[in-house]
Amino acid sequence: MTDSRAATKVWFTEVGPRDGFQNWPRPVPTPVKLELIDAALDAGVPRVEVTSMVSPRWVPQLADAESVLESLRDAGGDVLKRVRVLVPNLKGMERASRFFDDGLANVLVNVGVTDGFNRHNLNRSVEETLIDIGEVVAAAAPSKVRVDASVSVAWGCPYDGPVAPDRVIGVAQRLAEMGVAELSFGDTIGVAGPAEVGRLSELALEEFAGIEVAMHFHDTRGLGVANAQAALAAGVRRLEGSIGGIGGCPFAPNSTGNVCSEDMLAMVAELGFETGIDVDRLMQAAVSLERALDEELPGKLHRAGGAPWLAPSWAAGGSARP
Amino acid sequence: MTDSRAATKVWFTEVGPRDGFQNWPRPVPTPVKLELIDAALDAGVPRVEVTSMVSPRWVPQLADAESVLESLRDAGGDVLKRVRVLVPNLKGMERASRFFDDGLANVLVNVGVTDGFNRHNLNRSVEETLIDIGEVVAAAAPSKVRVDASVSVAWGCPYDGPVAPDRVIGVAQRLAEMGVAELSFGDTIGVAGPAEVGRLSELALEEFAGIEVAMHFHDTRGLGVANAQAALAAGVRRLEGSIGGIGGCPFAPNSTGNVCSEDMLAMVAELGFETGIDVDRLMQAAVSLERALDEELPGKLHRAGGAPWLAPSWAAGGSARP
Repeated sequence: MTDSRAATKVWFTEVGPRDGFQNWPRPVPTPVKLELIDAALDAGVPRVEVTSMVSPRWVPQLADAESVLESLRDAGGDVLKRVRVLVPNLKGMERASRFFDDGLANVLVNVGVTDGFNRHNLNRSVEETLIDIGEVVAAAAPSKVRVDASVSVAWGCPYDGPVAPDRVIGVAQRLAEMGVAELSFGDTIGVAGPAEVGRLSELALEEFAGIEVAMHFHDTRGLGVANAQAALAAGVRRLEGSIGGIGGCPFAPNSTGNVCSEDMLAMVAELGFETGIDVDRLMQAAVSLERALDEELPGKLHRAGGAPWLAPSWAAGGSARP
Repeated sequence: MTDSRAATKVWFTEVGPRDGFQNWPRPVPTPVKLELIDAALDAGVPRVEVTSMVSPRWVPQLADAESVLESLRDAGGDVLKRVRVLVPNLKGMERASRFFDDGLANVLVNVGVTDGFNRHNLNRSVEETLIDIGEVVAAAAPSKVRVDASVSVAWGCPYDGPVAPDRVIGVAQRLAEMGVAELSFGDTIGVAGPAEVGRLSELALEEFAGIEVAMHFHDTRGLGVANAQAALAAGVRRLEGSIGGIGGCPFAPNSTGNVCSEDMLAMVAELGFETGIDVDRLMQAAVSLERALDEELPGKLHRAGGAPWLAPSWAAGGSARP
């Protein structure tokens, strides 16, 4: 494997419209979702995870999945080529496939590494979930759509407790054998710390040299950004986050709080990595979202305002923005 | 210098009772302060910064400074030997000196590295503040009381903008020449990032090999814990924080948010360092403080509950605490 620690580019996926809104306590109007997606794309975010083809009975918050995709399609351009959609099963894959001809080319499958998580989430064991995923991957093959996989509760599970790295790598190997393009390891309930993140990052980069390795952190216990720093130090160059820090997972108790995209990306920039993203515009998007949802979002940067390394003009104005 | 990066012990100072309460919008009853101080000491925190001998006209929130120290003295034991008091000037030193015979043996002086900060804070230039500090240090000499110094706005100032590390080191050298025992570098308004934290940490450890080097972060832009991680990686072994993340600086706009002690110390533990502190008890202290103040505190761990590396029993209980 090449040593990714020398690479200076970081690839970022905004997951707020899916992972954030799926756990929002009130229904979020589709136009608010579309505004957030547009803002992220306009700010230079290379990819946005826009929705999930989950059953509306399970997650009514995402019942407008088709509506979101239709609007993005009708906006024209290559928007659908820059989005990813979660497909939890074959039924979801069928729903997503309606948009393949319009440009949608990236779906995401998901499995937790513990039986407890999969049972509560999908009423399946890990093995049964992997079989289901195999069917989804097979169904995607003719369309040449890219299939990524997220690996949930990779550092700990609310039902089965701490998780050993070997178990995580083992589940990921099964996904790799199916031919997924990317493996995203998720700290679904926010119990990871930087030492364990560094360890799993190194293991994953070594094991999956031909596959993209991403990390997805939650800030449930305040370590989301520090964990991202540890992942970068270990050589990971793909991160996920949620504008304003919205979100969580409806199936995991106390899992609120995706790591905040703009807080984390400010750090990524300060560390000297390139993302192609205008963090200042992401901050503005968080401010707009906070206004639209009429609820204080957990992210910090959008409330405090810019930082010296983001806005050279910061020095001139005296204090940060109110 | 010896390479501190091999050391596995981290020394922590709880500053919430001073840096947290001095900026609290409403007056905090003295018993609430005392309860927090007791809880921190009981949890094994080696030192608590309990108050400031600032003029009550400037900071009415700390007008009970003598009352706090009297109660700690009357509690008996060696409590006063485990606390530090901020003395902003000679008058403050005189007030603190009343408690030297009772066991108080550690005071803290403060200077910002920019003229803008000192002018707004103390109506002094940096040079004038350093002259004042020289008088305080001279006044402390006969009593053999330990004098530490905090260096504010060490990464950026709300009035004068970004600050070059050379300037910070230059001001710290002046304090070192006066004979201070510890230098605490403060990111008063939360504009530091891990790269710059690592740089200043390395410079300070190299320059001040005979003096304790501490770091004091604010979470204003969400990077407090990540900055602590960077300081540890550079070899810093002294950190400061505030239980529940209360606090800020009344003289610096948008400076709310000391880094949360228990969130940061959970990471410190996960990284394998020893602090002698029971983080679970700090969490309980944050829960009690939140109840006493009747206001949601910014820290995260106390809301989410323990983590696997803190409480081995976490695995058995299924989900984290509600």
